Amino acid sequence: MLHYLNNTRPSYAIDMPTPVFVDFNDVLTAAARIAPHAHATPVLHADSIDALASCVVHFKCEHLQRTGAFKFRGACNAVWSLSDEQAARGVVTHSSGNHGAALALAARTRGITCHVVVPDNAVRAKVVAIEGYGAILHYCAPGISAREAMCAQVRSDTGAELVHPYTDARVVAGQGTAAMELFAAAGPFDAIIAPVGGGGLISGTTIATHALAPGCEVIGAEPTGAAETFLSLQRGTRVTDFTPDTICDGLRGTLGEPNFALLRDHAVEVLTVDDAQTVAAMRMLLQRMKQMVEPSSAIALAAVLQHPERFAGKRVGVILSGGNVDLDALPWV
Amino acid sequence: MLHYLNNTRPSYAIDMPTPVFVDFNDVLTAAARIAPHAHATPVLHADSIDALASCVVHFKCEHLQRTGAFKFRGACNAVWSLSDEQAARGVVTHSSGNHGAALALAARTRGITCHVVVPDNAVRAKVVAIEGYGAILHYCAPGISAREAMCAQVRSDTGAELVHPYTDARVVAGQGTAAMELFAAAGPFDAIIAPVGGGGLISGTTIATHALAPGCEVIGAEPTGAAETFLSLQRGTRVTDFTPDTICDGLRGTLGEPNFALLRDHAVEVLTVDDAQTVAAMRMLLQRMKQMVEPSSAIALAAVLQHPERFAGKRVGVILSGGNVDLDALPWV
Repeated sequence: MLHYLNNTRPSYAIDMPTPVFVDFNDVLTAAARIAPHAHATPVLHADSIDALASCVVHFKCEHLQRTGAFKFRGACNAVWSLSDEQAARGVVTHSSGNHGAALALAARTRGITCHVVVPDNAVRAKVVAIEGYGAILHYCAPGISAREAMCAQVRSDTGAELVHPYTDARVVAGQGTAAMELFAAAGPFDAIIAPVGGGGLISGTTIATHALAPGCEVIGAEPTGAAETFLSLQRGTRVTDFTPDTICDGLRGTLGEPNFALLRDHAVEVLTVDDAQTVAAMRMLLQRMKQMVEPSSAIALAAVLQHPERFAGKRVGVILSGGNVDLDALPWV
Repeated sequence: MLHYLNNTRPSYAIDMPTPVFVDFNDVLTAAARIAPHAHATPVLHADSIDALASCVVHFKCEHLQRTGAFKFRGACNAVWSLSDEQAARGVVTHSSGNHGAALALAARTRGITCHVVVPDNAVRAKVVAIEGYGAILHYCAPGISAREAMCAQVRSDTGAELVHPYTDARVVAGQGTAAMELFAAAGPFDAIIAPVGGGGLISGTTIATHALAPGCEVIGAEPTGAAETFLSLQRGTRVTDFTPDTICDGLRGTLGEPNFALLRDHAVEVLTVDDAQTVAAMRMLLQRMKQMVEPSSAIALAAVLQHPERFAGKRVGVILSGGNVDLDALPWV
């Protein structure tokens, strides 16, 4: 069963395990629900990367997912979870990145309206992409409070359902389907690694892995310049006061509260990675595996390469989360 | 049955159809022979490319083949066609490009020696790659006659079997397996398009298509700056006197003689493409499909995009032949 806890969940004492807000049944249900719409993306492997990493790495290619990112899984699950009555009022979100595009396309697969709140200063190319998928744009001043206010306005005007990019239980359940497919295609693994931004992907990955392969470690990869998840888990309390400084534009957001509780309770470990290592991994994926991924994806391979002592001889699953890159701004040019 | 006609085939009057030097049984045999060693590469598809091309295009991803090119199929078939006695003497070729690397790795899969003759002025990165796959290098002066002389020397010294990159019947049969897999994964097609250099890939593609889908057109894509196949088919006689001028480094070679006869007898059509269109298609594949292919591959998509009136509404199969690109010399930077 799905609980929409992001607005209504009660607070718990820190030492008390938080009830799991998404479980593996939700992931299984999501898999069936999104199957007619989402791609079962390929899993790739390159001998030459194995040789450089001293381990066997299988890559789940979510950069080949529709809209170029895993985000389509969660957005699609959310959209197709709605009752007909809810669906008729549409959906709304305030992400100008991959989630906005994903929700727009997901809404289109159901023939419903999607509202996306974007700041005036959003990257033009991203806004064009979201519009291209058929969303109605609502511009607002930059900054989270203006975005939330505009979002509330749209909800009150239209009755549209809010689909948060990473705290929404339906979204997290959808993101878990990527790891599920990775295990089915190339498992077993000793470790599975996914990038950490707001925590939607790593949360879904944790739930799927815990159910399918309890002995497999779940590891998050996070930029040194936005390492609030690493800090939060170390301190046992969620850190929200930080200014991101990283090339990984998909990982600048703040770890969600239910995501924090889930990662803490499952003892997920986070490895931090410098941008230079991430860029080198991005280049390696392009050269050796012919895949264009965004820095926010390459970071997961960078984490493996940076810790040879830890992964040597192991079987590792890496989720390449997205491939939306501005070709005119390749980081090594 | 395989005939090694490249050295021994008799000449024919131009109007008399040349006996087919490879048939579909050879392709089927090759498929079984290389299956334990070569990748069954994925077939990709992108809605956004369909929209831009006004047709449905499925891409056979040979840039994800071992050594980064379809060449591994033919080389592998040649190596595993040898008797144990022949194999013990090794193989030799004089390609410093993808075929050299492919033959080196194919030889390694059988544990036999591979000699590769390379000109003194060969691109260093390519030579390093060939060496990395375990080949013995033999340097010679630039120019085809010096290369052939060195090749003859190696053969006389070692008894190694010559594996020509595109006239060898074993190689052509191996290359035909790519189209076979493409039909199985995503057929039927109205047309199938492959790049044309020496003619190994397009020959194998023609044989497979003729057997599997006689109603499907086979189309070659060739750079305007090395359009000797286009000219040869137009004139009915093989043109060999030309100086290539194209960014497509894999397509600068001269159409082989048995390849010419095969294309002529099967009425294969060749479309010529300007380098600028090829670069645009390469960029489109990177941006829309997240795939890094070499210009010699992107040319096949460019041919589709350049002829919307011809392909509109059709189902098209495109063979992306390879992905070995120097990242420091991306053509649009």
